[in-house]
Amino acid sequence: MTSIITLTTDFGLADEYVAVMKGVILGRAPDATIIDLSHGIARQNIRQAALLIASAYKFFPDRTVHIVVVDPGVGGSRRLILLQAHGHLFLAPDNGVLGLLLEPEHFQAAYELQCEQYYVQPVSSTFHGRDILAPVAARLAKGLDPAAVGPAIARQVIKTIAATEVNIDQKQHIITGEIAAIDHFGNLLTNISAECLQDLYGSEKSFVTITVNGRTITGIHGSYMRKAPGELLAVIGSRGFLEIAVNQGSAASYLAARLADKVRVEKSRA
Amino acid sequence: MTSIITLTTDFGLADEYVAVMKGVILGRAPDATIIDLSHGIARQNIRQAALLIASAYKFFPDRTVHIVVVDPGVGGSRRLILLQAHGHLFLAPDNGVLGLLLEPEHFQAAYELQCEQYYVQPVSSTFHGRDILAPVAARLAKGLDPAAVGPAIARQVIKTIAATEVNIDQKQHIITGEIAAIDHFGNLLTNISAECLQDLYGSEKSFVTITVNGRTITGIHGSYMRKAPGELLAVIGSRGFLEIAVNQGSAASYLAARLADKVRVEKSRA
Amino acid sequence: MTSIITLTTDFGLADEYVAVMKGVILGRAPDATIIDLSHGIARQNIRQAALLIASAYKFFPDRTVHIVVVDPGVGGSRRLILLQAHGHLFLAPDNGVLGLLLEPEHFQAAYELQCEQYYVQPVSSTFHGRDILAPVAARLAKGLDPAAVGPAIARQVIKTIAATEVNIDQKQHIITGEIAAIDHFGNLLTNISAECLQDLYGSEKSFVTITVNGRTITGIHGSYMRKAPGELLAVIGSRGFLEIAVNQGSAASYLAARLADKVRVEKSRA
Repeated sequence: MTSIITLTTDFGLADEYVAVMKGVILGRAPDATIIDLSHGIARQNIRQAALLIASAYKFFPDRTVHIVVVDPGVGGSRRLILLQAHGHLFLAPDNGVLGLLLEPEHFQAAYELQCEQYYVQPVSSTFHGRDILAPVAARLAKGLDPAAVGPAIARQVIKTIAATEVNIDQKQHIITGEIAAIDHFGNLLTNISAECLQDLYGSEKSFVTITVNGRTITGIHGSYMRKAPGELLAVIGSRGFLEIAVNQGSAASYLAARLADKVRVEKSRA
Repeated sequence: MTSIITLTTDFGLADEYVAVMKGVILGRAPDATIIDLSHGIARQNIRQAALLIASAYKFFPDRTVHIVVVDPGVGGSRRLILLQAHGHLFLAPDNGVLGLLLEPEHFQAAYELQCEQYYVQPVSSTFHGRDILAPVAARLAKGLDPAAVGPAIARQVIKTIAATEVNIDQKQHIITGEIAAIDHFGNLLTNISAECLQDLYGSEKSFVTITVNGRTITGIHGSYMRKAPGELLAVIGSRGFLEIAVNQGSAASYLAARLADKVRVEKSRA
Repeated sequence: MTSIITLTTDFGLADEYVAVMKGVILGRAPDATIIDLSHGIARQNIRQAALLIASAYKFFPDRTVHIVVVDPGVGGSRRLILLQAHGHLFLAPDNGVLGLLLEPEHFQAAYELQCEQYYVQPVSSTFHGRDILAPVAARLAKGLDPAAVGPAIARQVIKTIAATEVNIDQKQHIITGEIAAIDHFGNLLTNISAECLQDLYGSEKSFVTITVNGRTITGIHGSYMRKAPGELLAVIGSRGFLEIAVNQGSAASYLAARLADKVRVEKSRA
């Protein structure tokens, strides 16, 4: 059994908040390996955290415990949950941050946390990451049965987030999606998956025209290097989605692109 | 026995400085668990580091070794010390950075580092964190007797920092404190403790009026969620001190607040 | 045998890229200790990464595995290599990023990675750090023979970077070098080594005059503290090179200095 715990928060790294969660974990599970997934989520941006955890968890071993603390409702009526899905364990407030991990075919179980005997006492009203999620993660890393954290809840009652829209026009062969994330390099990560392109275009999937912010890109290339430095191109990115990039540059700057800008894909004219 | 070592510095994370300290530690204590407390202390800001280590250490297991390197006097005449207090071990320059950990009732012992046989040789004149504190921390993590690091020194000679002032007017029932820290969310952490409020106001401690930068807040609430998003409020924060916040927003921006701005608490009028 | 793996990238910390490399490593080498060397390399700045890894590796135990991913050519024709030198193992694209570790007297062996059975499958065309370097590092950390990663290559074919120039005028006793790096504190790290100063000036090495951006500094001091706060000075820095600093301030701001600005050293006039 592995005992890896990952942390995803909007805490930044200047304050002691991330570190004290680690202190709480190590006091209860000294052998846990704690990995920072990201503490650079924009403050209280549930969607960004939801995308990040859904992209990243799969590179960790089965039964990794993932804590996600983007929690604008801390101290209010939102509950804290444990989601068991895809062979992993996810601990988070029930505010949509786990909303992209709820596919029925990968759902195993979910519980509302009510195991107060494991909490840091007294529980503060402002930092449940430290006082509740961290100590419960430590117990899970040490082998606690997930069912011991509280009553089971149904998949359907877990809060989700409105999916970003991907429209597929089967007749015109047009896909309309959007920019779902912009990374450190200025690459534009769209919400259009490789599967979606395959389904609509089949073997012609690399021969498409992509339009973003009035600029047109012809073809999906095998790598950034297929264009000269400074040139705009499209690839299937490392998350498995259509990505707009500039070889050795920033597509975000080049296109003055922002989150939720529309991305249109259509068949290239011969 | 635990072998956790925490690091608090003003080094930032772009240079290799933090990492080489870890390399030095792991070369001497391969099983140590090293936790970054913060490397985002403002350059040479001793007070900020003093507050952070005093808030954070208590969430780690007993006998954790905490290295604090905010060291404007490196290479000068300031000494390096090991403070044994609160059941933990603290290694730092004697420049006030441990000044909030010196309560007589929690003091166990203190030593001036003179154990040159443990140092990285040759010792540089500009990076004692790497050449002295890191290797000594490694030895302590492996069980070295604290008394072996050098001669004992008295608690009274360890440098402290001027405490931020909290004035309590018993007659008028007024507390005057200040903003001691501003966190990543823009929450204003004051130097007025929950105990201080309890002592002066007793069971009426939540029925007070707080004034900061000309704005008035009525009552101390149980959590951020007790006000609408965007509204100003007061809570007892996760450090156990009065905190001014904006639900899902930044109190620092809202109040144009800065460190050391005055915070006044008085009884609410009926 | 140690099983430390260090990571040096230009990925920043906001995205999940660094974390998923760690996930891949831990899935294959659960006991590896992973240390972040820096993720703050400027995007695609091969020289900065080359300097940093060459300065930092030596503080880690022998046979540490160092992954360096600054890889503007990912998915193109550049190869990935394993360099065995100085008793350590370095994994990187062959683009010059290991160019300061190629001294013949410290070279042990080098290999081109071709061990596809170890890769994450399918290998993406945009993230070889995750799909190739991370899983190979994990195998090496578990004891894989370096020769098993692919065919040996000669030292001479590994790409290097043009060294920054240090001109030594033996007759006039003048050394001309440049600013090789600027750290978080604004210290100016030159490319003039302590050995170089020793060779030219011998016992008079501290009695030199240094000129940077029209300002003159007299003497090399033992530490930052040998000048008053706010004053400019020269020291031998923690990397073993001549460094220009301001006691408790920023030499970069003081001198409006930038990378590659010239630094001139000459004998002080009596």
